[in-house]
Amino acid sequence: MTLNFVGLGLNDELDITLRGLDIVKNCDVIYLEYYTSMLNCNVSCLENLFQKKIIIADRNLVENKAEQTILNDAKDKEVAFLVVGDIFGATTHTDLRLRAHKLGIKSRFIHNASIMNAVSVTGLELYKFGKTTSIVFPEPGFEPQTPYDVIKKNKKHDLHTLCLLDIKADKEKYMTVNEALKNLLNIEDKRKESIITPDTLVLGCARIGSSDPIIKFGKVSKLLDEDFGEPLHCLIIPGKLHFIEEEVLEIFKVEVNP
Amino acid sequence: MTLNFVGLGLNDELDITLRGLDIVKNCDVIYLEYYTSMLNCNVSCLENLFQKKIIIADRNLVENKAEQTILNDAKDKEVAFLVVGDIFGATTHTDLRLRAHKLGIKSRFIHNASIMNAVSVTGLELYKFGKTTSIVFPEPGFEPQTPYDVIKKNKKHDLHTLCLLDIKADKEKYMTVNEALKNLLNIEDKRKESIITPDTLVLGCARIGSSDPIIKFGKVSKLLDEDFGEPLHCLIIPGKLHFIEEEVLEIFKVEVNP
Repeated sequence: MTLNFVGLGLNDELDITLRGLDIVKNCDVIYLEYYTSMLNCNVSCLENLFQKKIIIADRNLVENKAEQTILNDAKDKEVAFLVVGDIFGATTHTDLRLRAHKLGIKSRFIHNASIMNAVSVTGLELYKFGKTTSIVFPEPGFEPQTPYDVIKKNKKHDLHTLCLLDIKADKEKYMTVNEALKNLLNIEDKRKESIITPDTLVLGCARIGSSDPIIKFGKVSKLLDEDFGEPLHCLIIPGKLHFIEEEVLEIFKVEVNP
Repeated sequence: MTLNFVGLGLNDELDITLRGLDIVKNCDVIYLEYYTSMLNCNVSCLENLFQKKIIIADRNLVENKAEQTILNDAKDKEVAFLVVGDIFGATTHTDLRLRAHKLGIKSRFIHNASIMNAVSVTGLELYKFGKTTSIVFPEPGFEPQTPYDVIKKNKKHDLHTLCLLDIKADKEKYMTVNEALKNLLNIEDKRKESIITPDTLVLGCARIGSSDPIIKFGKVSKLLDEDFGEPLHCLIIPGKLHFIEEEVLEIFKVEVNP
């Protein structure tokens, strides 16, 4: 039958589209991808809306057991694969779609908002963002400097950088803006190229797309101490600013106390 | 009261979110932005869904007459400002939000899918896209080479380039993939830096997010003659491909006939 990739958007059960809801209600089996992002409601809220049971799909199920579960079901049933945000934000979903294709299973795609476009709510122009990067929790022997290099290149071309922050869903561990800034300052300490200093102006964001988003614009030294509350957070390093961008950022400015 | 920016998503009336629908139904006045994108249904379909009358907002209304219309209404009424795709894809919307802020009018933001994230349906990874560019209809004395430069820079850093194609909504004129490719080849003729040649592999897309999307992957020389059907079209110049990206692109490959 069909493997329906359905985006849930950025917040809770009310962010699904009418088309997405209609399709999910007609599905025989519903999987919810639960490791690349975070839903701002209980799974039971979705189950009540759909009037159907939902199967939680962790990374192991999607990456190692999809043949016996999701893909096997989709051979003769209508299957929904729900993804928080948009449907192909992660390679793991594209890989699932590819495996379905190879098995001759038809796929359908219902898009939704992603943090990649919703960051435009900061006032920064989407077309002025360069490559996106991710900041991960450092581990002994694994302290990648990739984000630093991406920011450096984007800055060189006057482009903004969106930094997505690490998620360890199984441990309910979500990187904060503060942790991300410390991570970048640690890399700066080693590289000393003045890409991220305490004086660099950055944007810290939390819960974009929800009813209580936080956006704060200010120096790294200031945002290090700001509380952004519940996850998910993300960080933006602006490039060259257009005057309209500058005006909007004024709304979010956090002043350093005298 | 509130100026509610509500994204409609990429296709028709069924792509609004449940939250968006709920908000619009409770609005006193509804404007539909009608010049930066294209809705795939009649306005009456939206009116039937909302059970409300919709005011069409062309560029002149939003950019020159918003104070007397949208912003004036929002002072004491709940106003919806509907945008096809996501809400801040164009500077003109950010500017409207800024003007509302200056007048002390509260804004609310309901995101939706945008072409900027939905292009991931091609199998290309979103985080590997560089700066986005636009290709406009050339006019006497106005033949910008910006897209060529953006593609060149992105390629240098192995990044993909999304090219958004010009829209003249008032003339119902929408640039096709074929026109965009001709435009780039014309610039190549002048620049001769081998950034876009007849042998360059590109992706032509049409109606992404609709029920009949087209994605074709092949050489410029081949795609020049392919029919992509109804608007909206967009063009992607891939950078360096990951093996999973390569595998997905095989699905969309258009072979040159022997």
